[in-house]
Amino acid sequence: MVQFSPARLDSSFGALSDATRRGVLEQLGRSDASITELAEKFDMTLAGMMKHVGVLEQAGLVTTKKIGRVRTCQLGPRRLEEETVWLERYRQRWDERFDELDKVVDELTRKEKSDERKNRK
Amino acid sequence: MVQFSPARLDSSFGALSDATRRGVLEQLGRSDASITELAEKFDMTLAGMMKHVGVLEQAGLVTTKKIGRVRTCQLGPRRLEEETVWLERYRQRWDERFDELDKVVDELTRKEKSDERKNRK
Repeated sequence: MVQFSPARLDSSFGALSDATRRGVLEQLGRSDASITELAEKFDMTLAGMMKHVGVLEQAGLVTTKKIGRVRTCQLGPRRLEEETVWLERYRQRWDERFDELDKVVDELTRKEKSDERKNRK
Repeated sequence: MVQFSPARLDSSFGALSDATRRGVLEQLGRSDASITELAEKFDMTLAGMMKHVGVLEQAGLVTTKKIGRVRTCQLGPRRLEEETVWLERYRQRWDERFDELDKVVDELTRKEKSDERKNRK
């Protein structure tokens, strides 16, 4: 049974709510990169990219290390396990909920048709 | 092939980045509820809950309808399909990336040991 940590889900979903940050994760999934390389790739100032990387680092999705004057980024320890489980459970509930509603609608439609038939008689 | 809409992912992950909003979705997965009921359940002001529901509605995760003076909330049309696919792809890349790094480390360790053996001779 996965135990959800609300604060962790808050910070990881928050980190994922930005297209640039998702792009950085996709990039680091291919190869490590320096902040400068990422800033160039995403057409952004160094300061702007550092902010995004900071948010990803806080969420455990990226780790950075400074060698000389270059700060290199790589994927962090978090594999988004809990987030995936949360989404899967939600979708399961969503399906069940709409199945229930479908059944109610079906029943109402059947009842309506049967009433119509009775009224026609 | 799932086409990702960046703006949609921004808004849905943003909507999920708050424990109360995730709680509201879980609640609506069990049964529809009015804003007043949700506000009570989550120990929150009506205005605060309306704001959260607004964010969920914007992201297509909740729909509301007003009957008389009561605004009822239910799960919206979005099933978080794209979000799940995004996470699954990310995790796959994450695994591949760490497999690669493991291989590099293994190779370095083997090389080191073999060098040690050579030096001992």
